[in-house]
Amino acid sequence: MYSYSNLLGFTTAVLERMGFRPEEARRCADVFVAAELRGISTHGVIRLGDYFKLWQAGRLNPSPDIRTVHETPGTAVVDGDGTIGMLPSLYAMELAMEKARQVGTGWVSVRNSCNFGIAGYYAMLAARQDMIGIALTNASPLVAPTFSAQAMLGTNPIAVAIPTEQQPMFVADFATTPINRGKFTLAAKKGEKLGFGYAQTREGIPSDDPTILERGGTMLPLGGDRDHGSHKGYCLGALVDIFSAVLSGANYGPFVPPMVSFLPVLQESVGSGLGHFFGAMRVDAFMPAETFRKRMDHWIETMRGATPAAGHDRVLIPGDVERACEERSMIEGITLLPQVVRDMEALAVHFSLDFHED
Amino acid sequence: MYSYSNLLGFTTAVLERMGFRPEEARRCADVFVAAELRGISTHGVIRLGDYFKLWQAGRLNPSPDIRTVHETPGTAVVDGDGTIGMLPSLYAMELAMEKARQVGTGWVSVRNSCNFGIAGYYAMLAARQDMIGIALTNASPLVAPTFSAQAMLGTNPIAVAIPTEQQPMFVADFATTPINRGKFTLAAKKGEKLGFGYAQTREGIPSDDPTILERGGTMLPLGGDRDHGSHKGYCLGALVDIFSAVLSGANYGPFVPPMVSFLPVLQESVGSGLGHFFGAMRVDAFMPAETFRKRMDHWIETMRGATPAAGHDRVLIPGDVERACEERSMIEGITLLPQVVRDMEALAVHFSLDFHED
Repeated sequence: MYSYSNLLGFTTAVLERMGFRPEEARRCADVFVAAELRGISTHGVIRLGDYFKLWQAGRLNPSPDIRTVHETPGTAVVDGDGTIGMLPSLYAMELAMEKARQVGTGWVSVRNSCNFGIAGYYAMLAARQDMIGIALTNASPLVAPTFSAQAMLGTNPIAVAIPTEQQPMFVADFATTPINRGKFTLAAKKGEKLGFGYAQTREGIPSDDPTILERGGTMLPLGGDRDHGSHKGYCLGALVDIFSAVLSGANYGPFVPPMVSFLPVLQESVGSGLGHFFGAMRVDAFMPAETFRKRMDHWIETMRGATPAAGHDRVLIPGDVERACEERSMIEGITLLPQVVRDMEALAVHFSLDFHED
Repeated sequence: MYSYSNLLGFTTAVLERMGFRPEEARRCADVFVAAELRGISTHGVIRLGDYFKLWQAGRLNPSPDIRTVHETPGTAVVDGDGTIGMLPSLYAMELAMEKARQVGTGWVSVRNSCNFGIAGYYAMLAARQDMIGIALTNASPLVAPTFSAQAMLGTNPIAVAIPTEQQPMFVADFATTPINRGKFTLAAKKGEKLGFGYAQTREGIPSDDPTILERGGTMLPLGGDRDHGSHKGYCLGALVDIFSAVLSGANYGPFVPPMVSFLPVLQESVGSGLGHFFGAMRVDAFMPAETFRKRMDHWIETMRGATPAAGHDRVLIPGDVERACEERSMIEGITLLPQVVRDMEALAVHFSLDFHED
């Protein structure tokens, strides 16, 4: 088991060794470890290895000059100067909140960035300030639009966090595909089939093979097939891509620079790096904040009060599962997969650091 | 066949007979007929019958005092004064665009309203002004959250329209369920089963019976079941509900006053009428408008250029199907279902109007 402070300290140290300023390294590290705490380990310290490879290839700028390149009272575009995704994302969400304080809402699109970890992290920053927080990002092209055989979009997640009074915060944070890529890897390791509605072959024929992505296959959007609404999942992925990248000047669609090693880096570019989009909406820009928070509590209580379906105990509220995991992990510690432990140990050796369980 | 101007004239006349001011009646009528043109007849003149019943029951105010009840430079809450949904929606989208002109974006939540027709209509108003337009609405409770046996949310649609240069406008407009309620009615009429992933019994057991909603059954969110991401469809429906109603002071979740005759009107209320949410984002609040529109064209051309899946001709862009239908309907006219023709004829008799094909 690894404690929060152990993983935070180690991740901070690795980033410092790459040349990040100590305070910035610590802020980034907190996003990596938050993913572990919340049980979203596919976006946790495992990604440190991807960043290490980018850094070795000279594709990661540890001393960025993050700049606002365009703005109005309620909007901005931020250039991340080719650094790790967390830094321009934290800058952009703070800017969105500052704009919301001035005019009610703030909206910031980011270019020239990389993978930013879990989208929900940024949305929750706003919700702690009595604002509705929104975070979107595009990602490596792995998903085929409806009727396409070709991967044109990422798993492009949407996160929205909403403040409450007594109830825990509402936190929706989900990829716009039925399952994430981690489930493919897990099924492959166990030698299991995926089931249908998740993937197709390189010809666009439905497939339940979890190794299909490595052989030109593609993920399907939320909905799975046209009859079950995959065109809606495709719309969602498209909107995330457009808000994050068309609007900011980042690469969109198939031009997004891949973070996964089995996809090639394209020569053609339509912008800088990958893109994100952040929003902050002051709830008191609509009604008194306390009234809103109490209405939100009642909304949550109403949903929790729904009669459960046969075979189920209760209706969950978005964020329930991750929060329970976070509370447990803070007490019991965080479990890392053996492969992740080996990756961290290799980083420790490379940078002459210690890495061990608490 | 019925021409656009024929249906527009008739719908305007019916609304005038209910007491709406002529100019307002015509503006509402345009939204009803736009749904017919775009092939979304479930939201077309068929809904005039629902409004007629509300009007007869004294639940529809034809001379509303639509008011902005709260505002900041970038946000507002609008009270629809219990009138037909189109009027406060048009007012709110215009207000959102006016705020976007001032501070970059505008966001307006609406309460005390009714069904507003097709969400895409409002989003497209903004896109014609070089803004990204967003329209959401909550609706009669028919959809069960994941693990719930009980309907707690509506089909809560999301519409986003995005301006382009040479390419036709990008218009996503979709319910947050795999299919809409019209598909249930159609399957029932044809004596066909629905397939699975769309509905469940009143106990929460999967069902393929298209008449299940009339017997306490519920629709399922986009994704269908938990393994295929129904919790993400539930998140989307929840977000639409919260933005439209918790934020505005309208009724949310199971408290939304039903527009369908087989659901009871609840005594308990948590706000006024139903709710909508509108957004307008000036694209030149992020980058020069022409640059954005050209990037959007290229995004569309890129997606159209994807290799089609086996058995399919091409990849569609959101809005393609509805636009083709609209162009065809403007030339060839609009077909109405026999039941809808009978409803219109009954309205014509009631109000001493003419109703006939062109």
